[in-house]
Amino acid sequence: MTDDPKTAVLQVAGLAEIEDLHAYWRSANYLGAAQIYLQDNFLLEEPLRPEHIKPRLLGHWGTVPGINFIYAHLNRLIRQQDAEVLLVTGPGHGAPANLANLYLEGSLGEFYPDLTLDRVGLARLVRSFSWPGGFPSHLTPGTPGTIHEGGELGYALATAFGAAFDNPDLIVACIVGDGEAETGPTATAWHCAKFLDPAGDGTVLPILHLNGYKISSRTVLGAISADELGHLFTGYGYEVLPVETATDTAEGYAAAHRDMIRALDKAYCGIRRIQEEARRGRPAAKPRWPMIIQRSPKGCTGIEELDGEPVEGSYRSHQVPTADVRTNTDHLRALERWLRSYRPEELFDADGRPAPAVLATCPTGDKRMGMNPHAYGGRLRKVLKRPDFRGFAVEVRQRGKAMHSDTKELQKYLREVIRLNEADANFRIICPDEMESNRLGAIFEATTRQFAWPTVPGDEHIGRRGRVLEVLSEHTCQAWLQGYLLTGRHGLFPCYEAFIAIVDSMMGQYAKFLKQSAEVPWRPPVTSFTYLLSSEGWRQDHNGYSHQMPGFINTLLNKKASHVRIYLPPDANCLLSTIDHCLTSTDKINLVIASKQPMPQWLTADEAAVHCRAGASAWAWAGTGGNDPDVVLACSGVYPTMEVLGRRGCFVASCLSCARAWSISPTC
Amino acid sequence: MTDDPKTAVLQVAGLAEIEDLHAYWRSANYLGAAQIYLQDNFLLEEPLRPEHIKPRLLGHWGTVPGINFIYAHLNRLIRQQDAEVLLVTGPGHGAPANLANLYLEGSLGEFYPDLTLDRVGLARLVRSFSWPGGFPSHLTPGTPGTIHEGGELGYALATAFGAAFDNPDLIVACIVGDGEAETGPTATAWHCAKFLDPAGDGTVLPILHLNGYKISSRTVLGAISADELGHLFTGYGYEVLPVETATDTAEGYAAAHRDMIRALDKAYCGIRRIQEEARRGRPAAKPRWPMIIQRSPKGCTGIEELDGEPVEGSYRSHQVPTADVRTNTDHLRALERWLRSYRPEELFDADGRPAPAVLATCPTGDKRMGMNPHAYGGRLRKVLKRPDFRGFAVEVRQRGKAMHSDTKELQKYLREVIRLNEADANFRIICPDEMESNRLGAIFEATTRQFAWPTVPGDEHIGRRGRVLEVLSEHTCQAWLQGYLLTGRHGLFPCYEAFIAIVDSMMGQYAKFLKQSAEVPWRPPVTSFTYLLSSEGWRQDHNGYSHQMPGFINTLLNKKASHVRIYLPPDANCLLSTIDHCLTSTDKINLVIASKQPMPQWLTADEAAVHCRAGASAWAWAGTGGNDPDVVLACSGVYPTMEVLGRRGCFVASCLSCARAWSISPTC
Repeated sequence: MTDDPKTAVLQVAGLAEIEDLHAYWRSANYLGAAQIYLQDNFLLEEPLRPEHIKPRLLGHWGTVPGINFIYAHLNRLIRQQDAEVLLVTGPGHGAPANLANLYLEGSLGEFYPDLTLDRVGLARLVRSFSWPGGFPSHLTPGTPGTIHEGGELGYALATAFGAAFDNPDLIVACIVGDGEAETGPTATAWHCAKFLDPAGDGTVLPILHLNGYKISSRTVLGAISADELGHLFTGYGYEVLPVETATDTAEGYAAAHRDMIRALDKAYCGIRRIQEEARRGRPAAKPRWPMIIQRSPKGCTGIEELDGEPVEGSYRSHQVPTADVRTNTDHLRALERWLRSYRPEELFDADGRPAPAVLATCPTGDKRMGMNPHAYGGRLRKVLKRPDFRGFAVEVRQRGKAMHSDTKELQKYLREVIRLNEADANFRIICPDEMESNRLGAIFEATTRQFAWPTVPGDEHIGRRGRVLEVLSEHTCQAWLQGYLLTGRHGLFPCYEAFIAIVDSMMGQYAKFLKQSAEVPWRPPVTSFTYLLSSEGWRQDHNGYSHQMPGFINTLLNKKASHVRIYLPPDANCLLSTIDHCLTSTDKINLVIASKQPMPQWLTADEAAVHCRAGASAWAWAGTGGNDPDVVLACSGVYPTMEVLGRRGCFVASCLSCARAWSISPTC
Repeated sequence: MTDDPKTAVLQVAGLAEIEDLHAYWRSANYLGAAQIYLQDNFLLEEPLRPEHIKPRLLGHWGTVPGINFIYAHLNRLIRQQDAEVLLVTGPGHGAPANLANLYLEGSLGEFYPDLTLDRVGLARLVRSFSWPGGFPSHLTPGTPGTIHEGGELGYALATAFGAAFDNPDLIVACIVGDGEAETGPTATAWHCAKFLDPAGDGTVLPILHLNGYKISSRTVLGAISADELGHLFTGYGYEVLPVETATDTAEGYAAAHRDMIRALDKAYCGIRRIQEEARRGRPAAKPRWPMIIQRSPKGCTGIEELDGEPVEGSYRSHQVPTADVRTNTDHLRALERWLRSYRPEELFDADGRPAPAVLATCPTGDKRMGMNPHAYGGRLRKVLKRPDFRGFAVEVRQRGKAMHSDTKELQKYLREVIRLNEADANFRIICPDEMESNRLGAIFEATTRQFAWPTVPGDEHIGRRGRVLEVLSEHTCQAWLQGYLLTGRHGLFPCYEAFIAIVDSMMGQYAKFLKQSAEVPWRPPVTSFTYLLSSEGWRQDHNGYSHQMPGFINTLLNKKASHVRIYLPPDANCLLSTIDHCLTSTDKINLVIASKQPMPQWLTADEAAVHCRAGASAWAWAGTGGNDPDVVLACSGVYPTMEVLGRRGCFVASCLSCARAWSISPTC
């Protein structure tokens, strides 16, 4: 970041810089295509023969050149401005692109030392793509710099915003494919910018990667005009910066590079202006953050036409543009012409080392997008400060007598957690507008809902900066918290039990990310993702049948116990003990189901701590009416033993206290 | 519909018409508020006393006056133009509004004969709201005219489009709350208009009901300016018609009514113009359908202020504006002033009969929105024409030898189904851009993808009218098909197995709708909702871990067997038999999981029919290599016995043929 961003005026790059950028792009495109096709002759030192081609062709070429173009230009921006940029790549199947860039910038070699910048390392990279034991065809936790996997599309943009909260110097560049842009979660995530505090948060620079086609059909955004796109994203609240990548001629390429340089410089200046104003105490009434619409033909720089059918600029570029190159000589020649069009002999020396001018376009050290420290949140993670939960315990004189709303007790503890960590700005509560309804409103004595756009007199507990983020989109909430946790912070997601199943599949994808991360030695643990479901399915008599949907617990019970914990605290003190534990746990998905309705209280704080640590226990004491002692088996705080309990499915039989027997075998 | 809609010029209603509309609105508002509060003194013939108030106050007032306002004006439009309007109400918790209108127009009485338009019926209506055995606080299949329940928000708009396809004369008015508008599924559903064929389809008239607040916070759309809203919805492709409901004065109300009349007339003319042009063979390049933004203070006409805090126009109007009226005399008086402000003595006669001028504002017969025949799709449903599936069977000479892609065989049958029903225009395949990828591309020999906005040369199988709808939003696909089936048509939803869990909770809500519908005698069965998952989780080695997500079957196994069927056809002929059966079944959710990858073929068509009817069978024949016969237990076509099999979880053990053992106990 420059000392004074206002001096960072638009720079039109000189010819030499554009040539180097273009050479970098050619290199990344070459490596992208090579990964999809080649198992030998990696530098095309001989004529291409069928045996050089992988026996099974996998990968998605269509999005690769666009991602590479954006990556190259973000690299330039980072060098030029010493900017701190984290990349979230929506088109997860574009892994050949990300891998090519990570290889060239050297961050791949930091984690995979055998992927050296020479012919041996290059051969390993190219061969290992979509190969048993090698890199899969889409981004995973094993890809450096990645906090988002793709696969199930729609969550890149909101995840990027999650990473940007409370990281004031960070720019999260987010590539959104126009296929992904058709999903609901993405369509609403464009609104996230209204929640960013320009003073205390970083920002997201969305780059709509508009290549017009999804798997086999036109995209919706690819079918609407530039003017309509301008309206749409202006309506979403952005300053829209369009870039066209025309690819017919050398002049066309040069113009595209110049346009992208202009757009990124303008975006950067716009971002820093908004932030500087806010940080000097004069925040804009409506920060109009920049976004870029980068339009390019799908699979550009690839095969233009094959057998009389267009390939470049059509859905035929989506995956492997021509899959029969081992058997069809014409197609093999077309592939060779395509690969040679990048002039690899200019890009790599005889030892396979990339040209110095190409490497010089990359940032260095932790400024490389593959090395951005925020991508390895576990390294940045500070321990969350917590008060002693016993200080918020309800008094239990006679068991089962006093009635309390468990969440109403919990809110006082959470209010204190917020106060203790206010200075660290590393704890957030993210919720679909159900804080008050879930009896957590006391939290607003310590903080407010964050919303950066104008509110009106009478709006309560809402302001430019606060620890609570509320939006009526469970998808957005889920993605925000994922992005926030993966970048090393802490949080909690309170939600109605009935509606948390909306993110059922998102949670599944996140569970996979955690599971795979645990297998990557350079990804230290991150804080667990904790759900607090406090409007339980069985207390929805007033809301009716549509609000009864207990299936989420069922989905979690089918996940691996190594990454999932389920808690059913039966009273306020058990809930306090449970949440206190969950907020310190790592690499798990914690599901806490607890009541907001007044419920009998059973255990003292100390007893609750013991009970929760044990996982389950038999309680016996004098009955309330008769002579026999009541015996209650409670399933609260099952973390040490959940694995066994969950596997044996004995929640159902054992839990008499919280009456949730049916939640394991939910009715329709 | 007028003979020539172009003559339907804007009409500015005279004072008398506006007075009647306003009296209707007051009546509906009075009945809405009365349902929330009163258990006696329904016509306020005495001073309001605590014992007149229900002991437990439930319901959501905030959205009620807005829904009533829209309902009143849609009634006027219907009468004026003899229009055919089906209403989809997104804010499902606004049931007191819908019930009030359905009562006044008399359609409630058609199904609940004791809800007569007199003091007895009125008392029954008011008392039965949110009362055991009475109407719940949100819309359900028991609410006349309803094809969408609400509860889990986000799906109203896309469901409305589903109802509009292939109903050329129908206008589906869809009320979208600004809370719901924050959800992803709604945010992308605005694009649905680009899929409507103005010649062969009806249309949706979206009405954004913008009252600024959700449960306890400002809405995102409520915080952006009229200008920005204009950009946003222009960008989505609409002609934006804003209406402000100012409520301070009688003049304000009159102006609001006049504005809404103008907007609806303009919208109607716009709709009919687009349709007429297309039906005369001169379709607009980009049909710019109208949408209305109706902005009004939340809970308008309610209590303005209480204890110095604003109620009207704030989140405090969201549910019950003042809940302590039985114990707080000041609040009871405020409630009474509010209720009396509607002047019920002018609206109902001494026998509780609504004033004739009020009733005269309602349409009659099947033009009433509660009586729209499309809301009772089972009554309109025509049997789907199907060819004999045996005509598409693969030949099985030696069991387990020939390899075929099962879906590649199925596509020929489906192509014929499309041809046979082309004239009836009552069958659609709805898919998230995976038709080709799921090996169903032969369908495009008989039809095309429908997309009404311009495409470019080279785009294939896409045009203004076709039987296939593809959009990369599983939410949109699910809602489209729900709306299409509930209005009496037929369809199929092919999807990747990995990503169908995106609609896990939507499917759950739909299952509830089917279950409740079956308990409503005046809702005849509709065609089943059939999923075809043909990119199975266990064949995703090339796509990787993110594409392995077999949890959807697990969710379905936990639903009631009365409404759910699961099929795992092991070969092409079993798949043909299964789909042939599913397309004729009613009121079920059918899950069919079948392979697109080449698989061994086992049964002849006749054997497949027998096997599928039996549900499961033991196959024995000479082994391929040794002397012992191979025995294969196959679980295909489990419909008659699924209940038993599913409940005992023995899919896992018994199914050797399709190797899906792990799909029941999915890994993380």
